Amino acid sequence: MTCPALLADRFNTLRYDAERGAVVLLDRRLYPFAVEYVECRTVEEVARAVEEMVVQGGPPLAYAAGLGLALAAFHNAAQPADAQRENLRSAARRLLATRPTADDLHHIIPQALAIGEAKLNEGEASGPAILDFVNGEIERGDRVSRACGEFAAGLIADGDRILTHCFAGAALAWMLWIAKEQGKRVHLYPTETRPYLQGARLTAVSAKEMGIPCTLITDNMPAFLMSRGMLDKFICAADRITLDGHITNKIGTYQIALAAHHHHVPFYVLGYDGPDPKTATGADIPIEERKPDEIFFARGVDPQTGRPAKVRTAVEGIDGYYPAFDITPPELITGIVTDRGMFEPRGIREYIGAEKHE
Amino acid sequence: MTCPALLADRFNTLRYDAERGAVVLLDRRLYPFAVEYVECRTVEEVARAVEEMVVQGGPPLAYAAGLGLALAAFHNAAQPADAQRENLRSAARRLLATRPTADDLHHIIPQALAIGEAKLNEGEASGPAILDFVNGEIERGDRVSRACGEFAAGLIADGDRILTHCFAGAALAWMLWIAKEQGKRVHLYPTETRPYLQGARLTAVSAKEMGIPCTLITDNMPAFLMSRGMLDKFICAADRITLDGHITNKIGTYQIALAAHHHHVPFYVLGYDGPDPKTATGADIPIEERKPDEIFFARGVDPQTGRPAKVRTAVEGIDGYYPAFDITPPELITGIVTDRGMFEPRGIREYIGAEKHE
Repeated sequence: MTCPALLADRFNTLRYDAERGAVVLLDRRLYPFAVEYVECRTVEEVARAVEEMVVQGGPPLAYAAGLGLALAAFHNAAQPADAQRENLRSAARRLLATRPTADDLHHIIPQALAIGEAKLNEGEASGPAILDFVNGEIERGDRVSRACGEFAAGLIADGDRILTHCFAGAALAWMLWIAKEQGKRVHLYPTETRPYLQGARLTAVSAKEMGIPCTLITDNMPAFLMSRGMLDKFICAADRITLDGHITNKIGTYQIALAAHHHHVPFYVLGYDGPDPKTATGADIPIEERKPDEIFFARGVDPQTGRPAKVRTAVEGIDGYYPAFDITPPELITGIVTDRGMFEPRGIREYIGAEKHE
Repeated sequence: MTCPALLADRFNTLRYDAERGAVVLLDRRLYPFAVEYVECRTVEEVARAVEEMVVQGGPPLAYAAGLGLALAAFHNAAQPADAQRENLRSAARRLLATRPTADDLHHIIPQALAIGEAKLNEGEASGPAILDFVNGEIERGDRVSRACGEFAAGLIADGDRILTHCFAGAALAWMLWIAKEQGKRVHLYPTETRPYLQGARLTAVSAKEMGIPCTLITDNMPAFLMSRGMLDKFICAADRITLDGHITNKIGTYQIALAAHHHHVPFYVLGYDGPDPKTATGADIPIEERKPDEIFFARGVDPQTGRPAKVRTAVEGIDGYYPAFDITPPELITGIVTDRGMFEPRGIREYIGAEKHE
């Protein structure tokens, strides 16, 4: 079975191009209004692409950064081993500094660096080993997404009207596709997800690619729809899960979770490969604050030309505040669905010892 | 004392131009990116301007419609009385059908129609009487706004960080201005308020015109800011208040009220001239559902040219749902502030017998 959503398979959207010596990334700021790929030829270009949201989502941005480290290794392969080691460390620092909140980046880069350094210590080339590792992580991530989506599909009942926020990634696509293959009728309600509108673009187009009925709402509507009995479940992803069952996800998740709790709408988190073993609780999660300027604009497509365009939506001369994520405590979460099955939020630590289903 | 916010005085934004025989309305879809006035020369043009959000807010749109009825009276003044009466009734029906949720429209149009018909019955011209009545309502509305704002200013403490949603109108401007004149430092946090971005434009520019520090956030952020202790009060308006203390206001208000209740942030409603005596409870409020197409776009200003522009923000080929208002029950509201002082939500019925302060 293949899933017709382009974003269900990460290799569709990011790869290392050996011929060009470049990391090639689908520009998720423009997709699906334009299918454009950004070619990053230096570590700095990869880092900026990650910072500037060319790639988004915890795992995808970690993969892009990992490929950036491979690129650094290949580009410096002719230098003495000491210089290569220094270059790799410097590249890893730059890539780690791009985004603080999601944990995937902070797992993949240190591992990729260690693999590269080990090769250099053995007098071997670091590039191929780092690239193999990162490509292996992408493959593993795709398997995790599918397994997580499969468990989540098991929670869906025929006729479910599912609210989602931001783009919950490949696991969401698999969940919807597998549920559909199981003959369940599902109706998706994505929030548009300001300011980057991942819901209006990435989630909505994924639903469209799979033939899943999709009704867009703005970020201020979920509680109203719940009050009218229009939603059966709230399902989103998490950029990091703590050992005590807090989750961080796109700003707005917490506000919806409060409304879902009030209205007894079950809230499931697509937890992919589980909690971050290094993060004990919600207070330990760094919340990224992005440039206020980003909330003063809306990107989209010019209705006349069909070309990507943006408008300034706020008056000039005011301030803005843009925390990119928020934290939802375990008492607001019904269950965290992973590639190893579903866990109660407070029991998510058990994921670590649980059997792998992949 | 005058308030420097343009929108604090409704005569700045809407009037009947006798020379041109037209209702002239500030285009609130463009303001403050452009200061453009729409000239409506027929009842149908006034009705469409109201429907298409040229004018927004319960009282202002009611005034615009009332001026539209005056326009109908003037334009038909040469006809026989029976034809004039029929024309007026037909115009009133068209204007009443524009927007269902806010109650002001449904008070002003029937009263204006009755005044016009009474004049016709006496063999007199209906136009001047209707225009006098509507202009009197606008003057009264401006006094109500100022009195309501003054009572609300009394609730504000020095240093308050105030969340607001949509544009709470002239009373909000007066509240902020009077608080400032009283030497209180206030920091305003407007939500941008999708899809029409009244917060990012109308509220933000009003704060700017008054020199009130203003930090814009998106609609999905209020709960997070509350969880971080960054907000002291939530204050917005109401398009209709019921006799048992439910309020309806711009979609999103209910979701924020739930979050405010959870975080013990006081929620005050700027209630202007109080409850609708004809609406018993929340279930009696008709919630307007607008064209889904409206949430697929964002209006703003082209950053290159500085001219008003819009972009399509959602992928094509999906559905959308746009309820324009929601309902907040009394248990989530701390107090309703009117031109006759503050009332507990469940006691708002007492407004009707309360002394007028104007």
